[in-house]
Amino acid sequence: MEKEFNEIISLISKYQGLTKKTSERLVIDLINNKPKLDEMIQQLKEIKTDFKICKECFYLTLNNDLCEICVDESRDPNIICVVATTIDAMNIEKYKKYKGRYAILGGEINLNKNIKPEDLKINELFERVNSKTELILALNATFEGEVTANYLSKIANTKKIKTTRIAKGIPSGGMLDYMDESTLEHALNNRKEMKVK
Amino acid sequence: MEKEFNEIISLISKYQGLTKKTSERLVIDLINNKPKLDEMIQQLKEIKTDFKICKECFYLTLNNDLCEICVDESRDPNIICVVATTIDAMNIEKYKKYKGRYAILGGEINLNKNIKPEDLKINELFERVNSKTELILALNATFEGEVTANYLSKIANTKKIKTTRIAKGIPSGGMLDYMDESTLEHALNNRKEMKVK
Repeated sequence: MEKEFNEIISLISKYQGLTKKTSERLVIDLINNKPKLDEMIQQLKEIKTDFKICKECFYLTLNNDLCEICVDESRDPNIICVVATTIDAMNIEKYKKYKGRYAILGGEINLNKNIKPEDLKINELFERVNSKTELILALNATFEGEVTANYLSKIANTKKIKTTRIAKGIPSGGMLDYMDESTLEHALNNRKEMKVK
Repeated sequence: MEKEFNEIISLISKYQGLTKKTSERLVIDLINNKPKLDEMIQQLKEIKTDFKICKECFYLTLNNDLCEICVDESRDPNIICVVATTIDAMNIEKYKKYKGRYAILGGEINLNKNIKPEDLKINELFERVNSKTELILALNATFEGEVTANYLSKIANTKKIKTTRIAKGIPSGGMLDYMDESTLEHALNNRKEMKVK
């Protein structure tokens, strides 16, 4: 029995976000509670039929070819916010302030994990741009995020497309003595004049 | 779309071992990769048909009423190792040294989480015992584990059934200066004579 159990755990733990430990707990709980297992199968089937990926920006959509953002004419098609994942775009959407569009790359360049530029939706992004486009690179402030931002910025520059990178600095609520050198350096270099009336 | 997505995430994140964050990553990945989603549905269906719970000890079994351990006559039915979860029993099995049987309670008494004695397989456990039985309480060395061990031990004492509790002390590889007071106290009080020839 252990052999069969370990086999199924090694399959389940390959899914995004699941570890060996969480897979074991999940599978044991589902075997102990088969109606729950049926429910989960049903929910996965609903996910399959209810959600699709937008053909233009790769955001989620409810069974339309284009997402709510791409068909919203009040949103500026010349401002494209480039993010690594759908969840990043969702987080920006939560604040309801951003009025441009998105391009979801589906990850960041990561040579350790063998994620190359051609594995990301980079060609698709540059098919959408023209001389009036501004690309806002809202990638993570990590090594992989920087590599990806540099890669995109290089291509954009040769095409004379304006690119901007979101600001680096102290996060809201951040304490100076918890910040690393690089954050402090960015925060100091990108200081803004402050006027209190 | 966000509403529908948040609804499905709140359902998926209720499963054992999944958080809101891991559910979001999993669901987004599956929507982006529908063949993978089909594969996961298929694997869950296999889990449903391939695994059952032993009627005697509640360990996993491959579609038999009794598990491999309960039908193994070389294993002493008078020694019952009481554990909280299937995974605890699996971990003990890995060392291939224990030659008794198990009783899986399906959790520990936890009044904060509203897990009461009657939610656990305690009646089922005491139906299996007789005057020759030894109950080895292999519950966690946590508050909940202690409460559950005390509860079981009290019932066992009234029935004049021998109960033992697994030893508390320094774990293998443990450094003294990382151990809390309670661990040190147990380790000192339960010291064993050492003889080197």
